[in-house]
Amino acid sequence: MKLKFGRKVISVEEARSVLSEYVKLTETEIVPLSAAFNRRLAGDIYADHPVPHFRRSGVDGYAVCAADIEEASPDNPAILRVIEHIPSGTVPELTVYSGSASRIMTGAPVPDGADCVVMLEMTDALPLLDAGVSSTQVCIKKNVPMGSNITPIAGEIVAQELLLPQGSQIGPGEAAILATFGYSYVTVFRKPRVAIFSTGSELLNVEEALQPGRIRNSNSYMLAAQVEAAGGEAVIMQALSDNVEEVEIALLETLAKVDLVITSGGVSVGDYDVLVDLFGRFAGKLLFNKVAMRPGTPTSAAFWENRLLLSLSGNPGASFVGFELFAKPLIKAMSGSPSPCPEAMTAYLDVDYDKGSAFPRYVRGTTHVENGCLRVKPSGIDKSSIMVSIKDADCLIQLPAGGSGFARGERVLIYPIK
Amino acid sequence: MKLKFGRKVISVEEARSVLSEYVKLTETEIVPLSAAFNRRLAGDIYADHPVPHFRRSGVDGYAVCAADIEEASPDNPAILRVIEHIPSGTVPELTVYSGSASRIMTGAPVPDGADCVVMLEMTDALPLLDAGVSSTQVCIKKNVPMGSNITPIAGEIVAQELLLPQGSQIGPGEAAILATFGYSYVTVFRKPRVAIFSTGSELLNVEEALQPGRIRNSNSYMLAAQVEAAGGEAVIMQALSDNVEEVEIALLETLAKVDLVITSGGVSVGDYDVLVDLFGRFAGKLLFNKVAMRPGTPTSAAFWENRLLLSLSGNPGASFVGFELFAKPLIKAMSGSPSPCPEAMTAYLDVDYDKGSAFPRYVRGTTHVENGCLRVKPSGIDKSSIMVSIKDADCLIQLPAGGSGFARGERVLIYPIK
Repeated sequence: MKLKFGRKVISVEEARSVLSEYVKLTETEIVPLSAAFNRRLAGDIYADHPVPHFRRSGVDGYAVCAADIEEASPDNPAILRVIEHIPSGTVPELTVYSGSASRIMTGAPVPDGADCVVMLEMTDALPLLDAGVSSTQVCIKKNVPMGSNITPIAGEIVAQELLLPQGSQIGPGEAAILATFGYSYVTVFRKPRVAIFSTGSELLNVEEALQPGRIRNSNSYMLAAQVEAAGGEAVIMQALSDNVEEVEIALLETLAKVDLVITSGGVSVGDYDVLVDLFGRFAGKLLFNKVAMRPGTPTSAAFWENRLLLSLSGNPGASFVGFELFAKPLIKAMSGSPSPCPEAMTAYLDVDYDKGSAFPRYVRGTTHVENGCLRVKPSGIDKSSIMVSIKDADCLIQLPAGGSGFARGERVLIYPIK
Repeated sequence: MKLKFGRKVISVEEARSVLSEYVKLTETEIVPLSAAFNRRLAGDIYADHPVPHFRRSGVDGYAVCAADIEEASPDNPAILRVIEHIPSGTVPELTVYSGSASRIMTGAPVPDGADCVVMLEMTDALPLLDAGVSSTQVCIKKNVPMGSNITPIAGEIVAQELLLPQGSQIGPGEAAILATFGYSYVTVFRKPRVAIFSTGSELLNVEEALQPGRIRNSNSYMLAAQVEAAGGEAVIMQALSDNVEEVEIALLETLAKVDLVITSGGVSVGDYDVLVDLFGRFAGKLLFNKVAMRPGTPTSAAFWENRLLLSLSGNPGASFVGFELFAKPLIKAMSGSPSPCPEAMTAYLDVDYDKGSAFPRYVRGTTHVENGCLRVKPSGIDKSSIMVSIKDADCLIQLPAGGSGFARGERVLIYPIK
């Protein structure tokens, strides 16, 4: 048996804090807006012009002088001469003076002189033959106050206003803002490249036929899907052997090419736990190798060749949880997220959970809302395969250490993961 | 003024139901598993082998005959001869008989003859010099029942079990299952291609300099981000003019190339509402042109050239809501989702909302969980720009028609949109 060096246990929070000290933002890159969805902005975005940048009509109708229609009613309409038609996208040429009106479309610039717009529904247009020139007059049947249906310049957004802070993730709303301000290209953080290694000589590649005593490598694909959901670019590597020299070479080669290396398996203290052996001989700095959590107590991390190496437990459930707790915040932080750790929420436990634990437990959970209350139950308690139940999880339930379990209806903290 | 043809109002539910009759699944395509994340499976996935496919040890320890250790205790250890070491990934060569044990790793196949595995922690290994041959014996210090720490064949998954039904979206858990069963390539539905048109001669392309009376086209980018979030492939088209002949040509050309066409703007009854004019003259079938909802009452849809054309209101808030209510379910259904419409949840309104409405209102909302309860407030009620508040929405709040508004603390239905 190889040397089992002592392990100092630290909390999940401490482990996250240690890791966060080594996070480096990726460099920035410029991409077309239409290819930038879900990416994060590399700088603050300020308004370089007000919105609207002209007095904008909010309705279809007539731009008039409010003083002209103060007394207007269905029985006593104000009759005004229509001097111009202003479709949206055009610029009015004429000033509206007392006694006149301009027909105006939603979104079009309100002409000088006009100080309110009356909705079409409150008007009647009448042909007017005036000195042989075809023209129009309009009856305004309602008085509206000055300013009605006009959005003033900067009524929505003031120039120089901060619109989107650095790190904002570009969703539909952000895309609309960026387009409005002319960002056909945006500067975003590059997606962190994350190499994924599984360990164990029992692992077959996914395309290989099944063999006695061996299983296909599934953790790497699970982790790759998690990496992409976190905003990273996953690189699935050939599974690591149980030979520590080979592992050292493979990891060193890879560390130089990516932003983060994640391994699964090989971190407990069995004969063939190759990452344990590696950490006993490598030139990097071991950050921690035991975390006060179940599953995944032997989760380890190192800083090596200027890169982070995160080593998760090999069990699929432990790998999944370890990724969500440690790798996802790293990837989000590297790609610019200002709040990479999910916020805790309170939920009601929907079933009894009778397992106590010496360490806090992070249980994969499935939430639903019932009558306005958030309820949660452990995922897959009715399933015999951990792996099959991973797809059902939408949160991690944090159960404190100690005790003999938790009763249905107790309030627990959960961390959303979708 | 052009003819304003009569509009028959239908409910959101009816509109969705009408649209769903015209949904066609996209064709299928085969993609590498690592490129298939978030796509939907085109067929059911069954287990073609049991999991585990061999009797698997759940711990590091010794595989023994339970009968040999029935009386074992620290004071009275059972002493067994170690006949083999079984790393995971190998196949045991020797049968464990009474009086013998095999050292076994987590995940390795349990040898024939053995009917339980004792954890390493409950054993002591001792060197044994036997007739000049170096060998090992092990002291077992605890009895464990038959079957302990062995997962039987099919203990997790039975062969022929349905693992993932058609339409499942491939996330981390699904990826792990697919890898386990050798799916290095998966058959998924092609992403629906969705063409996006905005209408209005006031629209500038995003890369153009601002001009008096004109604004940049932001709806198209917002909708494109929504399309991609829904699982589609967005194709942003040049904005449509106000000329109905040109619009007809542009739409006809595009309908032949995509799975769905979405327009924003041009559906109300103003002078330049070009989609209204188009629906009055085109050879397609108008499905509806008025929906009992605010915003977006004039939302329209047509079936034309064997494709769906969905025409949303032009206001950014109305476009956003109309997309979520109608386009997202279409895109999800086309790409294989078995439940394309989001399920309603109950939440507590967090502020007074004093606007009644003749039609049900779909208000962009922002949720948070407080003490286990889901609370929601309209997004951006403190903001002067609708567009700026779109990014804050994570649900639609459905407020029934009528009345004079809703009070803080009332329960409302919400539909998550993220």
